[in-house]
Amino acid sequence: MRHAIPLSLLLLATPALAGEGKWTPQQVLEQGPAWVKAQGFGLPLDKLWDAKAGGGLLANAVQLPGCSGSFVSADGLLITNHHCVAGILQEHSTPQANLTVDGYLARTRADEKKAGAYRIQVPRAFRDVSAEVRAAVPAGADDSARFSAVETKQKALVAACEKQPATRCQFAEFDGGLFFTLTEFEEIVDVRLVYAPPLGVGNYGGEVDNWSWPRHTGDFSLLRAYKDGQPYQPRHFFPVSTRGVREGDAVAVLGYPGRTYRAWIADEMAERQERWFPAVRDLYGEWIAILESSGKTSAEVAIAVADDLRGLENTHKNALGQLAGLGRGRILDKQRADEERVQAWAALRAEGQQALAAWEGLRTLSAEKLRTWDRDFLLDLVARGPRALRWPAQLARRAHEAVKPDAEREPGYMERDLPRLRDRVTRDQKRYAETADRRWLHSWLKRALALPADQRIAAVDAAFGAATTDAALEAEIGRLYAASRVFDLATRKAMFEETPDALRARKDPLIDMGLALDAERRALKARRDRTAGATLRLRPTWRMAVIAEAGRPVAPDANSSLRVSFGRVRGYSPREAVVMTPHTTLAGAVAKHTGQDPFELPERVRAAFVARRFGRWTDPASGQVPVAFLADCDTTGGNSGSPTIDGEGRLVGVNFDRVWENVANDFGYNPEVARNVNADARYLLWLLEEVEGADDLVRELVAAPR
Amino acid sequence: MRHAIPLSLLLLATPALAGEGKWTPQQVLEQGPAWVKAQGFGLPLDKLWDAKAGGGLLANAVQLPGCSGSFVSADGLLITNHHCVAGILQEHSTPQANLTVDGYLARTRADEKKAGAYRIQVPRAFRDVSAEVRAAVPAGADDSARFSAVETKQKALVAACEKQPATRCQFAEFDGGLFFTLTEFEEIVDVRLVYAPPLGVGNYGGEVDNWSWPRHTGDFSLLRAYKDGQPYQPRHFFPVSTRGVREGDAVAVLGYPGRTYRAWIADEMAERQERWFPAVRDLYGEWIAILESSGKTSAEVAIAVADDLRGLENTHKNALGQLAGLGRGRILDKQRADEERVQAWAALRAEGQQALAAWEGLRTLSAEKLRTWDRDFLLDLVARGPRALRWPAQLARRAHEAVKPDAEREPGYMERDLPRLRDRVTRDQKRYAETADRRWLHSWLKRALALPADQRIAAVDAAFGAATTDAALEAEIGRLYAASRVFDLATRKAMFEETPDALRARKDPLIDMGLALDAERRALKARRDRTAGATLRLRPTWRMAVIAEAGRPVAPDANSSLRVSFGRVRGYSPREAVVMTPHTTLAGAVAKHTGQDPFELPERVRAAFVARRFGRWTDPASGQVPVAFLADCDTTGGNSGSPTIDGEGRLVGVNFDRVWENVANDFGYNPEVARNVNADARYLLWLLEEVEGADDLVRELVAAPR
Repeated sequence: MRHAIPLSLLLLATPALAGEGKWTPQQVLEQGPAWVKAQGFGLPLDKLWDAKAGGGLLANAVQLPGCSGSFVSADGLLITNHHCVAGILQEHSTPQANLTVDGYLARTRADEKKAGAYRIQVPRAFRDVSAEVRAAVPAGADDSARFSAVETKQKALVAACEKQPATRCQFAEFDGGLFFTLTEFEEIVDVRLVYAPPLGVGNYGGEVDNWSWPRHTGDFSLLRAYKDGQPYQPRHFFPVSTRGVREGDAVAVLGYPGRTYRAWIADEMAERQERWFPAVRDLYGEWIAILESSGKTSAEVAIAVADDLRGLENTHKNALGQLAGLGRGRILDKQRADEERVQAWAALRAEGQQALAAWEGLRTLSAEKLRTWDRDFLLDLVARGPRALRWPAQLARRAHEAVKPDAEREPGYMERDLPRLRDRVTRDQKRYAETADRRWLHSWLKRALALPADQRIAAVDAAFGAATTDAALEAEIGRLYAASRVFDLATRKAMFEETPDALRARKDPLIDMGLALDAERRALKARRDRTAGATLRLRPTWRMAVIAEAGRPVAPDANSSLRVSFGRVRGYSPREAVVMTPHTTLAGAVAKHTGQDPFELPERVRAAFVARRFGRWTDPASGQVPVAFLADCDTTGGNSGSPTIDGEGRLVGVNFDRVWENVANDFGYNPEVARNVNADARYLLWLLEEVEGADDLVRELVAAPR
Repeated sequence: MRHAIPLSLLLLATPALAGEGKWTPQQVLEQGPAWVKAQGFGLPLDKLWDAKAGGGLLANAVQLPGCSGSFVSADGLLITNHHCVAGILQEHSTPQANLTVDGYLARTRADEKKAGAYRIQVPRAFRDVSAEVRAAVPAGADDSARFSAVETKQKALVAACEKQPATRCQFAEFDGGLFFTLTEFEEIVDVRLVYAPPLGVGNYGGEVDNWSWPRHTGDFSLLRAYKDGQPYQPRHFFPVSTRGVREGDAVAVLGYPGRTYRAWIADEMAERQERWFPAVRDLYGEWIAILESSGKTSAEVAIAVADDLRGLENTHKNALGQLAGLGRGRILDKQRADEERVQAWAALRAEGQQALAAWEGLRTLSAEKLRTWDRDFLLDLVARGPRALRWPAQLARRAHEAVKPDAEREPGYMERDLPRLRDRVTRDQKRYAETADRRWLHSWLKRALALPADQRIAAVDAAFGAATTDAALEAEIGRLYAASRVFDLATRKAMFEETPDALRARKDPLIDMGLALDAERRALKARRDRTAGATLRLRPTWRMAVIAEAGRPVAPDANSSLRVSFGRVRGYSPREAVVMTPHTTLAGAVAKHTGQDPFELPERVRAAFVARRFGRWTDPASGQVPVAFLADCDTTGGNSGSPTIDGEGRLVGVNFDRVWENVANDFGYNPEVARNVNADARYLLWLLEEVEGADDLVRELVAAPR
């Protein structure tokens, strides 16, 4: 852990590929004004980021549940994606008013609808805690102890930080331990819905268009933050541009990208390409077929499985995209070539020997992972499998952690997490449908029972080992569902508060299997914690060599911390003879309208188009109302709702997707196809002004000086 | 029938839309050298077409079975599509050498493989027979008599013409009787296979890429015509260009386009858009599902139904494309607007009254058609339905016609047609699979039994009226298949030579239903002949007004006669933000290669690519071997294999498809999306020279002076 990376390494001159890199604000600052200007940003550096004040325009990226957002007015108006407020729309829907489908517009502030459990985090302070974390690891600690020490320190740092009122703190590890940060957020609990367009705008194209271009989706919504009953006054906000952007214009995307894997070595990526994604493709494909055919048996089942189906389909489609992109971008080949170059560089240097050894160590860890791969894959999927598996397993884990002192509990099961967990117990009930769940469990069990002899799951063998035929397995499954009370919400809520002994005393067969599965999952976690401890020891050493050899700043992998990506508005060619141009318009949206979901543009939007009621919102180039645009910003999941700003710090759009060919950019940046998809802010303004007549909101959005 | 169109109407100056029009050679001549030059063709007009000699370069379009082709050397070498020689490849395939998959190259003339039943027609003389045809219609003839008179005259003209040795003659009706022509062809019966690329080149992309762009298909093949055992010396041939074409370059496509409907009135088109294509989409969709699921039960069934399935899928996909294109191009709206304009024009003129009445007459005919539409649709589909329907119905018709004198028989059942019909009886046997056929019949019968009371099919009611449940219908179907001998090839061949009485005496239940169905189909045909007679009276009058109002030449609808379409190499935008550029290359073909059918590029092609063995065949612009290109030539089915020539009369490609968005151009030309797809001749030359080492062929193709 003696590997503080010299900051100067991050400051070298050669720029990365255009668009590549999810930079920390600190890195932006360190690269200097000339570099920032070369990105097309003419603002003074200290306006973008003031290290001393721990803020600047780049800090106007707010963390939402699973999403990003940004303030767009002095009165706490906040923009994010339509799909990031789905829960709020659901919460306020009634049989009389289905906000999910029809959208919502608060005509006055009094009409704004408070979101029950929606919390947002506004970043307030950023701190490098690398030295503290490293100091917490005892000399001579083995890999497990190293992992524990870092985890304990992380909890302590977060707990201390969160002693401040209305504060949420987030610990982040960069590139496997190269450095660590702690971000302090102001937590806002009073968030109100101001505007969400109808589903036919906000999710126009739906699953058909998902991950693709051209897009015609107005995937935006407006919230307002309140504090003490008054509109929240943010430190920074982006005024909304009425001018938009053209091909070649500079833009930046800010937000909290979730997770990428570019710092992995090729062998680790190979496990994804050769095992994980193909396995997800096959198993999720099977599960999708089960839920789809179950859903066809009744409307209730269809409704119950809809969320799971959407989740599985999203991951399944993502896996296909990752596989296609890893192949197309020859990402593994490039990674191996890069590693060989770094190895050659390291071999010539005395200080390089450690890096070579670290690389060997990472390879060994990766090879070990393959030994119990099939078994571990199935154990992991307990948490995304049938409710008969995931509910008991979660209750078991919760009970197991509950008996520990809070500080020793696994993150995610600490006191601070309980309100969210309890909410989820209740919310998840409506996703259960017995017929579908039984077939789903059958699929998982069949695979578990087919595992090789050295990878058996004892909990499964104990409960189902005797079922050697499909019929016997079926019968045994039936017996378990009949005997278990885990599917009853009141019972399950009670179970959530029980100790392991109390759960065991119930003699509920699914709970018993859950307890046994949880034990195996905890053993797996212990193994992984040890591996993580080893990685903490090895990866930083290797990454230092990679960065030193590159001789230029290297952006760390995404880890849900604040990042900025600079890019340009650009089209691309997905394949020979096909060119995607970077702008779409209302005319294209109307041309796609079929009247059938997901291409059902609301009547009033089409009427405004037919009447050519474009107001002041036509783009001079096309003469049409702009709807969406492409840029080559470097994004991933978590960037949903991220503000897309122009070189003068005005909001020109909201990021909402990547193109299909760019899904594998989580493993490597391919400049040919690295494109993010943005909803054009002028489409929002047009909808508000010409379709909804919400002139006050338009004034609030565009009139505000920066 | 007094409506000879003044030729001057065809000569007016205003040009049609770029690319629009399948012109007759005579029309090209009549439009004059300035017009031809404006199309980008610098050749002297008399080189293109010499009316006196009845020939010229434009006559170098040879008619092949269902396709077009052209001579490309002085020694009778002929180029067409790969898919136009499928029968020859099948004929010469053996268990040891599957030419269909592996292709074929004759290294010497002695190796060229003679095609058994393949005949090609080289045009020799063109004659306008309008006056003769009109004179044949007796004064005061009613509609049925008018139709008969024209049909009888047609047969007499063809019979007289075919008295010449080795001559095939073709009668053509233009725009419903505006004028009539007779084309005299030299028939060549000794045709030999010289080169067909492997399926992985010639059908690369298969059904997946069919009707689409970008394409990477080397859909070409070389044949050689022989006469008296010696290579045929054509009057004209196109030397192959080694330079290719670039975006914007002029090209022309020559050939025998089959059938288009632009001269129809809007009501007639509406029947297609509102009834026919939706019905085909639905019923063919059902039939495809039946054949596909039947094919999954056994490999034999799968093989048996493969051809039918391909045919149904092609028509089904075409129907979808027609519907999409009719909608996208607003073809009906445009047609109605055009008609209103012509009506307004006609209303102002005394001579226009006849045109207005003719238009009303056509509308009335169209409305009549709708009255028995559902019934007629099912009767028509007897000929494309299960073998249990189509075989008996065809045997019945053949028997019915056989007892008449040859000259009075229905075209298609005359002595000259019998060798082809007998061949088909035998060839069709391998497409029969009982399990699939029974389900197929069930589908047809269900619809027939559901017809409204005033549209019943008596033959069906007689045989199946009592089957009121699915099970009863099933049982009755089973009884018929068991009792009938029509599925036995030897019996069916015998039946083919029998009289109606002899067939009836067999008391075969399917033959009995076939005889009854044929009687209803003949009654339908009699009704249609009467309608056709009325159309012969009405449409020319209306079309004369249309052409006069247009004040410019109007190309007649395609009718399998020789046409030329002038265009430019051009990309297009299928939808907003997507641009198709007009060239593809070998690099794109390699990028598509998955190793799985239909993307299985042969190893030796990929090896040549990897080794960058491009020889002299790279396009200077891309540095790659060109594979295919788009142009806006006006084509349809029958143009498969048509030569695509440049402005100097060199062959630059072979037409093989239209893009999906252009399928509805049969009803109206939409310049935005009217694109035909051509295989680049340089891809052929590269394959021959760099992959196959067929230097002699390359020399024969490119060295020849024009």
